[in-house]
Amino acid sequence: MGRSYRRLVIIYRSFMDSDHFLKPFFEPRSVAIVGANPRTGDFAFNAIENLENFGYKGHIYPVNRKYAEILGRQCYTTVKDIPFHVELAVVVSPRNTVPGVIRRCGEKGIKSVVVPGQGFADADDEGKKLQQDIINLAKYYGIRILGPNTLGVLNPFANFTTSFLLLIDIHTLPIGMISQSGVFFTTVGRYSCFGKAIDVGNACDIDVADALEYFIQDEDVSVILLHIEGIIDGNRFRTAVTKATKAKPIICLKTGRSQEAAKAASSHTGSLIGSDYVWDALCKQTGIIRANSIDELSDLGKAFHYLPRPKGNRVAILSGSGGVGIIGIDVCIEHGLYPTKFAQSTKEHLKTIAPHWYEPKNPLDLWPFMMSSPKTATKAIESILNTVLNDENVDAVLFFGGTWWDDLIPSFVEIIVETTNQFPNKPIAISFSGGAILDVLAEHISERLEKAGKGFVFSNPNDAAKALAKLVDYSEFLSQS
Amino acid sequence: MGRSYRRLVIIYRSFMDSDHFLKPFFEPRSVAIVGANPRTGDFAFNAIENLENFGYKGHIYPVNRKYAEILGRQCYTTVKDIPFHVELAVVVSPRNTVPGVIRRCGEKGIKSVVVPGQGFADADDEGKKLQQDIINLAKYYGIRILGPNTLGVLNPFANFTTSFLLLIDIHTLPIGMISQSGVFFTTVGRYSCFGKAIDVGNACDIDVADALEYFIQDEDVSVILLHIEGIIDGNRFRTAVTKATKAKPIICLKTGRSQEAAKAASSHTGSLIGSDYVWDALCKQTGIIRANSIDELSDLGKAFHYLPRPKGNRVAILSGSGGVGIIGIDVCIEHGLYPTKFAQSTKEHLKTIAPHWYEPKNPLDLWPFMMSSPKTATKAIESILNTVLNDENVDAVLFFGGTWWDDLIPSFVEIIVETTNQFPNKPIAISFSGGAILDVLAEHISERLEKAGKGFVFSNPNDAAKALAKLVDYSEFLSQS
Repeated sequence: MGRSYRRLVIIYRSFMDSDHFLKPFFEPRSVAIVGANPRTGDFAFNAIENLENFGYKGHIYPVNRKYAEILGRQCYTTVKDIPFHVELAVVVSPRNTVPGVIRRCGEKGIKSVVVPGQGFADADDEGKKLQQDIINLAKYYGIRILGPNTLGVLNPFANFTTSFLLLIDIHTLPIGMISQSGVFFTTVGRYSCFGKAIDVGNACDIDVADALEYFIQDEDVSVILLHIEGIIDGNRFRTAVTKATKAKPIICLKTGRSQEAAKAASSHTGSLIGSDYVWDALCKQTGIIRANSIDELSDLGKAFHYLPRPKGNRVAILSGSGGVGIIGIDVCIEHGLYPTKFAQSTKEHLKTIAPHWYEPKNPLDLWPFMMSSPKTATKAIESILNTVLNDENVDAVLFFGGTWWDDLIPSFVEIIVETTNQFPNKPIAISFSGGAILDVLAEHISERLEKAGKGFVFSNPNDAAKALAKLVDYSEFLSQS
Repeated sequence: MGRSYRRLVIIYRSFMDSDHFLKPFFEPRSVAIVGANPRTGDFAFNAIENLENFGYKGHIYPVNRKYAEILGRQCYTTVKDIPFHVELAVVVSPRNTVPGVIRRCGEKGIKSVVVPGQGFADADDEGKKLQQDIINLAKYYGIRILGPNTLGVLNPFANFTTSFLLLIDIHTLPIGMISQSGVFFTTVGRYSCFGKAIDVGNACDIDVADALEYFIQDEDVSVILLHIEGIIDGNRFRTAVTKATKAKPIICLKTGRSQEAAKAASSHTGSLIGSDYVWDALCKQTGIIRANSIDELSDLGKAFHYLPRPKGNRVAILSGSGGVGIIGIDVCIEHGLYPTKFAQSTKEHLKTIAPHWYEPKNPLDLWPFMMSSPKTATKAIESILNTVLNDENVDAVLFFGGTWWDDLIPSFVEIIVETTNQFPNKPIAISFSGGAILDVLAEHISERLEKAGKGFVFSNPNDAAKALAKLVDYSEFLSQS
């Protein structure tokens, strides 16, 4: 790549970046916390404490007329008293003071404001009126508003968050999360499942389509998770999403599926809802991958990040017990995967390492191969995986561990990393069937695989098969569009 | 109750007990381990070591011509050399030696035999022939056989097991498990979910119907879990199950649902399979509660044990976040539960403890009530639960914790125990929505609730709602039958 072309790309990128109005929300160089308080710890909900713990390197300006200093920082009476440029204001003062703060932000020249508090369009008539006041003032001053009723943004790449809740287990994963509820910041799915996140809350201004546009051009994001209760501007959303699904997989949890829930969702964030049938059609047309629960959203995000996309739906089922092998067929059929037939050469090679009475076939019962010693078990698993992945009739593997031993963990992780490198187009979806002790073991293996960037462990055979099936679907969508 | 009547009951019970041929399998006073070995630890699969660790108090007789002593016990050349009465033999010697052992058991007068090994009807032609030999010999000598291809029985009430795998996290729960695969012994579901268990394996003699009959009359069992791949004698099963469902809830995971899986299941345990539609009809007619995964089987077993059965399907949804409240409605509608409307008095009382801007309704967002301090949070939860459970329009509660604090755990457990005692007909199904940290917290709360015998924590809102719905279904089945 020539030097001038590279420079052009850099200029273009920095133009794109600086152009998007959401950038100051995700990586502000300075932030004012209006209504800041000096309390710390649980139940203090201190955004400044949170930012410090998170290692934020930008400028933090507390604003509260009651205090001269908060956490060792000079505290200002109003935002207008801050003698520096402020890129973002987070307004955590009581709801009836918010319009006044927005006005002063406008006068100060602050163009980006987050309003975390509840009690606006999500609440009574007074709240609805206050939200309208905010919208009017924002328009007048050219301010973009995130919220109200939001935890705002989370950006581990810049150690920045507007959340007043403590955040834990946050990683710089290239998975972006867009939600209409703060619950996804603190409690989404199993283990950490995203990097950057934005909660649009009541979406009085910034909405899901804006966030989508931002994540499409964001190089830190390669998979996008969506939690949607309802969309006000359906056309804008469709345009944004149609562009996005071709570039990056979008996985969507649409809640408020029933009429009853839709009504409640409308009062939760004040947004309108399309019928579930319309949503389903929209997903099919635009290639959105639909998730049906918080856990599935988290699983699919990680599946699309960690696992390669298979070329087809022919699956080898390797199972620690015959009983779970049968379950493996059930879950394959349920999700449109095909329990493959092994090639003759595969069967013949497996026969050489099996007990004499065992006829190798799919699903393959691992137990007869591995019961003699940890060393035998490790060797058997390695040999079986290699044999099966070499089979032309195999597009992907479902690996269901059963009885297991701590000693096997490191070598098993090594084997998976190794075979994943060797067969970069054949995903291995792993689960360990149930039981508290296997949960702990599965977590250890999952952590190690995630650290190696080579996979993770699903909670059960069904979730593993479902995710594989969605990977197959997306490959098909891309090849057809 | 008069003394003579009580004596009659005792005589009848002891007659019933001693009558059932499965009793020596579950609580033998003496057991011979044929093919015992002196190795211990992982990969030794030493049933004697297992029995000792489990605290078995009966007599153990190792049999193996190669050793004079095993784990400090005299070892016999054959079962016939044991100079004592033997109630049960567990035959772990190589498959081709098994018929000879069965013959010697017959000659010795042992009437109950477990054959754990694989390689019989589940394997090649030679294995099928060996299994037929076993059947013929057993018939000739009047021996009952459990297996082959089985972990046998587990009975924590008598500290007895025939499993050669180490068992962990076993409790004397009044939940009985009948399975066709050993995987359920070691790895079923989340945390410990049953007490007594029997794996019928290839079921060459003792089958699911036998086990069902035993658990129906067993006072240590009040809920029965079933894992079925296929049944050979459908009529016997139907008769047993029709009697059973009226006495004790039976929850069944039927695997091998697709044709492909049915074929594989047939080669796994050598049993025949009915079509899935036939099964579904059978479940509806007989009142079997159907589970669709290992985790669901485990959840439902615990739900039927720990939770009372609600009188109707009207549910109050209490949620730590508005977003999960919406999900709560979705899962209710999906499983046939009705998100209730609160009585006017309920709303009025909730209004007195809510922030002024919040209009209490179902689903109830707990966050506005509990965000000021741990003390406020505890009080709010207690008051809300009491108010809602007092509402005549509420049959059950779905409690979805979100953001949470360690400090709340003990008082939350106390509140649940207290309210469960106060409202013994209104189940509270609890889950904490996702996230590694909340998983740990949920596990702590679940353990404490289980110890108190007053509930447990589901993995997610969907599982909680599904279980509530099955409790409602079973109440309806009982009232109609």
